[in-house]
Amino acid sequence: MIDARHRAALLDIVGEKGLVEDRQAMAAYEIGARYDRGRAALVLRPASTAEVSTCVGYCVRERIALVPQSGNTGLVSGSTPDAGGTQVVLSLDRLTAVFDLDVDNRSVHVDAGMKLSDMNARLEHSGLFFPIDLGADPRIGGMLATNTGGSRFLRYGDVRKNTLGLKVVLADENGTVLDLLSGLRKNNTGVDWKQLFVGTCGAFGIITECMLNLEPVPRQVATAYLVPSDGAAITPLLRMMEERLGSYLSAFEGMSGNAMSAALAHVPSLRNPFRNAPIPAYVILAEVSRSWQPRAGEQPLDAVLETVLAEIWDAADVPLANAFVGPSNEMWAMRHALSEGAKHAGRLVAFDLSFRRADVMAFCEWMKSELPSRFPDVAIIDFGHVGDGGVHFNLVVDEARSGLVSDGFETRLRDWVYSVAIDRFGGSFSAEHGIGRKNQTYYDIYTPQKTRNLGAGLKRLISPGRVGAVRFG
Amino acid sequence: MIDARHRAALLDIVGEKGLVEDRQAMAAYEIGARYDRGRAALVLRPASTAEVSTCVGYCVRERIALVPQSGNTGLVSGSTPDAGGTQVVLSLDRLTAVFDLDVDNRSVHVDAGMKLSDMNARLEHSGLFFPIDLGADPRIGGMLATNTGGSRFLRYGDVRKNTLGLKVVLADENGTVLDLLSGLRKNNTGVDWKQLFVGTCGAFGIITECMLNLEPVPRQVATAYLVPSDGAAITPLLRMMEERLGSYLSAFEGMSGNAMSAALAHVPSLRNPFRNAPIPAYVILAEVSRSWQPRAGEQPLDAVLETVLAEIWDAADVPLANAFVGPSNEMWAMRHALSEGAKHAGRLVAFDLSFRRADVMAFCEWMKSELPSRFPDVAIIDFGHVGDGGVHFNLVVDEARSGLVSDGFETRLRDWVYSVAIDRFGGSFSAEHGIGRKNQTYYDIYTPQKTRNLGAGLKRLISPGRVGAVRFG
Repeated sequence: MIDARHRAALLDIVGEKGLVEDRQAMAAYEIGARYDRGRAALVLRPASTAEVSTCVGYCVRERIALVPQSGNTGLVSGSTPDAGGTQVVLSLDRLTAVFDLDVDNRSVHVDAGMKLSDMNARLEHSGLFFPIDLGADPRIGGMLATNTGGSRFLRYGDVRKNTLGLKVVLADENGTVLDLLSGLRKNNTGVDWKQLFVGTCGAFGIITECMLNLEPVPRQVATAYLVPSDGAAITPLLRMMEERLGSYLSAFEGMSGNAMSAALAHVPSLRNPFRNAPIPAYVILAEVSRSWQPRAGEQPLDAVLETVLAEIWDAADVPLANAFVGPSNEMWAMRHALSEGAKHAGRLVAFDLSFRRADVMAFCEWMKSELPSRFPDVAIIDFGHVGDGGVHFNLVVDEARSGLVSDGFETRLRDWVYSVAIDRFGGSFSAEHGIGRKNQTYYDIYTPQKTRNLGAGLKRLISPGRVGAVRFG
Repeated sequence: MIDARHRAALLDIVGEKGLVEDRQAMAAYEIGARYDRGRAALVLRPASTAEVSTCVGYCVRERIALVPQSGNTGLVSGSTPDAGGTQVVLSLDRLTAVFDLDVDNRSVHVDAGMKLSDMNARLEHSGLFFPIDLGADPRIGGMLATNTGGSRFLRYGDVRKNTLGLKVVLADENGTVLDLLSGLRKNNTGVDWKQLFVGTCGAFGIITECMLNLEPVPRQVATAYLVPSDGAAITPLLRMMEERLGSYLSAFEGMSGNAMSAALAHVPSLRNPFRNAPIPAYVILAEVSRSWQPRAGEQPLDAVLETVLAEIWDAADVPLANAFVGPSNEMWAMRHALSEGAKHAGRLVAFDLSFRRADVMAFCEWMKSELPSRFPDVAIIDFGHVGDGGVHFNLVVDEARSGLVSDGFETRLRDWVYSVAIDRFGGSFSAEHGIGRKNQTYYDIYTPQKTRNLGAGLKRLISPGRVGAVRFG
């Protein structure tokens, strides 16, 4: 519940359409994409940067805590309120008016509340797209705030690399608007301020408008499943593909046998690409693509991929047990079903880790050998972006077997996995999901004290108000 | 001259080899790559991050101003001391020991004093390279500090996009070392601190070690000269090339007739690629490249380029007056000679500007029409990275014609060009050269007050000591 005076003042800013206080209507803003459920004092839905600015200024002056929320598809409780019922959710979902395409510059200026799918639909006729490929359908502001990666990172990079500019409302008493919306690709005139707002989950301000880099839509795509001879073969295989395919290579995704089995068991629409053969222990989904229509005299792209796979097959130390080119839709359907499969396999304890590229499989193999003796009744369902060093490392706990989950079991399991990933393998505890309440503890543990101090100082300098679900201090 | 006590303390840190005080030996560190010449109190040449840290801590405590210097190839007086004789130059030129290649990760960890050419030579056997292509041969630390772009920006991006991590010594009383040397490609665990040190020319700390992204070396290259029918045709031409060549396209560089004529007049080794024909008003050098060796059944790359040019030629609204594929070495020789040609054409007033892509030529055309009436006896010699919106806009002043240069003429000329570029065309006053004493005035003029305040606050927070040639306040 919010004080009547504050309610009246905020209603005055955003109007009837911009204020949600009905408990049932608020639920959609209180429930996250995975498990978490908080309680909001109120939901604000401002419809312009100016309204966001006035809301933020008011809340900072009145010491009201704000949690900015974009598409609310995040997985780390970064966009939902805590259970206290005192935080106000500031949703971007009415911030969708601006769409300004500059084909010559290959850039688009959009309001932060626009959905990724809506934006790409509006871009379609231009032959350009925003090259961040995700399973979810977030709003653009949240993509910047979490710096999402996705399945084509290897070719196009993350959101940071594709952000030319942004407009942000700082959490100070004036709701200061910083206009960093330059569409310039080269601009070295001091601090590149936009970088502070990308990936920091709203703690340094609320992104309200975005200027994005666009890329030509792929017009030819070919995919293959590669079965490596063992885990150690995967990085050499990646390097061979990169050498022979260069910028054609647009995805190099890993799928463990466990992950594929769970998807086949729990996603009814999914076809088994291996038919009656046993499911391999690990499969790489490799994609090559190019942006032009097929041309006379040019080798078709699937033939190029076949040729390269044959070359690799013929190489002296062949790291391949099997490889075949196949229909892209079917091959990607499996990849996209893995997350859904894992969710239904049992109680999920999910990790979004990254490593230097050669260490992804080293970590997974180490875990396969060490986990069973330390945590019996926990199964590994791993898959991910092997070409970028990322892995969605999911553990499935068999709850039926014991009362394990009740007595701090999950915390012990998390602590142990993170310590192995970070202390032993030099990895990251958040590859592409950002920071929220869910992984705040690990930020506090694994960020050196002096870096945390700088974070706290930066917060005081730029956005001293209570905004965002995380503490960077 | 430096106080004897300070000299002794600094000598104690860096040893005999690390201290230069002889006036003649210091000259190399006092003279910039273009025009500027300052006077140093002393030159320090620490040989490790630890030595840099001790030097910086001492100088901050004793309030001695430090100017970090890397390869000293910059063009904005960002790496040389001012004329006062009280600043100490801290050179990175002995910081060259670390070279640690991770082929699987496509990354290399190097000391910041390593030269670009040395690093790429050591990388050669690996088939990988650091994809920043420059006329100069800087040291790596300075490339990060200025965020250089270069001729293959269109394909690979700038230094920022290719920096995976760095180690930096902050200008505080402890000479705090921040180790951000992660080789991770995905890591969203808070503020991406390295971004603050890329492009800020040492003001926020001295970069001592770098972790860089590497790319496969191109194994096939083809180039063409395209003569657009007029300035307005260039952006449509670029878009047609991008659609038809996608990630093959690795350069799209513009060369004005004036720039080519100056190069042919002043660079004796240069051949005239147009033979006896008149030099066109504007030429685009387009390059396509791919990273693998030619394969059987594959169309050679120059044939691909020919095909695409024929397609464009056949298009209804053909923006091309002429186009021909030719030998890469020869075609690039012209591009690389333009800077040298401009330098010899007269007294140079040089600008490193950028715009939204369609505005590069609009700006140049506007200038061609307006400059003569306002500044007679000034000729335009422009060329640059049209595909990224960048232009090296050089003005050559005919000094013989009048005493123009003496009475603040150059300042008036600079002020006017910047105001047109920024106020009228929304451009940047420093596309890829960074900030130094030379363009400090324009930082002060064109950076909004609240951004300047944030810059000053950030400086106090992170590196309060007197380091760098620029003020971000």
